[in-house]
Amino acid sequence: MPRAVREQQMLDAAVRTFARRGYRNASMDDIAEQAGVSKPLVYLYLHSKDELFAACIRREAASLVAAIRAAVEHDAPADRRLWSGLHGFFAHTAEHPDGWVLLHVQARTHGGPFALEVVAMRAEIVEFVTQALTAAARENARCGSARGTGRITGGEASGLAYALVGAAESLAEWAGDPAGGGPSAEEAAATLMNFAWTGLGSLMRGERWSSGEHTPA
Amino acid sequence: MPRAVREQQMLDAAVRTFARRGYRNASMDDIAEQAGVSKPLVYLYLHSKDELFAACIRREAASLVAAIRAAVEHDAPADRRLWSGLHGFFAHTAEHPDGWVLLHVQARTHGGPFALEVVAMRAEIVEFVTQALTAAARENARCGSARGTGRITGGEASGLAYALVGAAESLAEWAGDPAGGGPSAEEAAATLMNFAWTGLGSLMRGERWSSGEHTPA
Repeated sequence: MPRAVREQQMLDAAVRTFARRGYRNASMDDIAEQAGVSKPLVYLYLHSKDELFAACIRREAASLVAAIRAAVEHDAPADRRLWSGLHGFFAHTAEHPDGWVLLHVQARTHGGPFALEVVAMRAEIVEFVTQALTAAARENARCGSARGTGRITGGEASGLAYALVGAAESLAEWAGDPAGGGPSAEEAAATLMNFAWTGLGSLMRGERWSSGEHTPA
Repeated sequence: MPRAVREQQMLDAAVRTFARRGYRNASMDDIAEQAGVSKPLVYLYLHSKDELFAACIRREAASLVAAIRAAVEHDAPADRRLWSGLHGFFAHTAEHPDGWVLLHVQARTHGGPFALEVVAMRAEIVEFVTQALTAAARENARCGSARGTGRITGGEASGLAYALVGAAESLAEWAGDPAGGGPSAEEAAATLMNFAWTGLGSLMRGERWSSGEHTPA
């Protein structure tokens, strides 16, 4: 079996083990056994528990960011772009619950350089969302539909991006807890569209966002 | 000096030290020195580093929840109730940055029973927001302004509450980082009202929420 394939198997086993037991309680013996390889081979390929943990975080962070970028329908209207990106985020975290727990809980809990990897990933997502919001606001301004005083400034776009990312993380945490009555990926994305796009004010009046109504024909 | 006053001084010093150095690197010597008392007195009153840390988390959590509850203008319209609660949250975290770091970063990082105290506080806030949203939606339904199909269900109110709390935490984190161009408490609350109440869809059209327009005369 080629080394690259073996390494991915080790990382799969390690992500599962770190997510479920935490860094401290995860043993290299368990990880090797789950990966179906010998412990010396894990050390040969990935050197140490620290480096293995770092490799897991990097792989899961890159995979999450790539899933969001790939999900965005770039040529769609602004609301549909947001919907597709959110849907990509919730679908990915639902399909990779161990990866999400590793990034959202374990990496931060363990602190130090691992937490910084997650901070960097989060900053990349916030920047991506900021640019998307700025671009959408610019389009609207060009179409003349935004009132002069109502334009979104750069600093405000950052703030809105932080709010959106925080809301998405909080909902993903809830969705990851089926015992707590958490929603499916579809429901989480729909809730966030109603919250973030329609706004609570309109929701209170009985309006809501619907992906169907906004699908390009 | 009465014991209660001495204890609060010790907790003040401990919150500051734990927030800035983390649990592991905070020493009881430093805390005693900052509080202007002897180390044996700290142990006499608060028993151990673990119990001192727990007492700090409980005090800061209770103080944050109380600040939010006290800030809400109960007899105001729904948007103004939300605004007043958010403003209370951002003002409190801005005035107590060490307390916020203790709850939002250090308690979770240290894990175990400390993290659970924060989980319980967060659950209390989510429940409070869920009830507030449900009450606001019910009022609107009673006034006949909500369309029948658009009503907010209980599960959805929970989801919206998770989104709102996550968005607020994320903005508070940003606001707590002046080097990162973070906003003031006022700006953070206004950004979140625009995000959560007006909605991105309306913002894109140049509409925004204004506390002034909604102030009861």
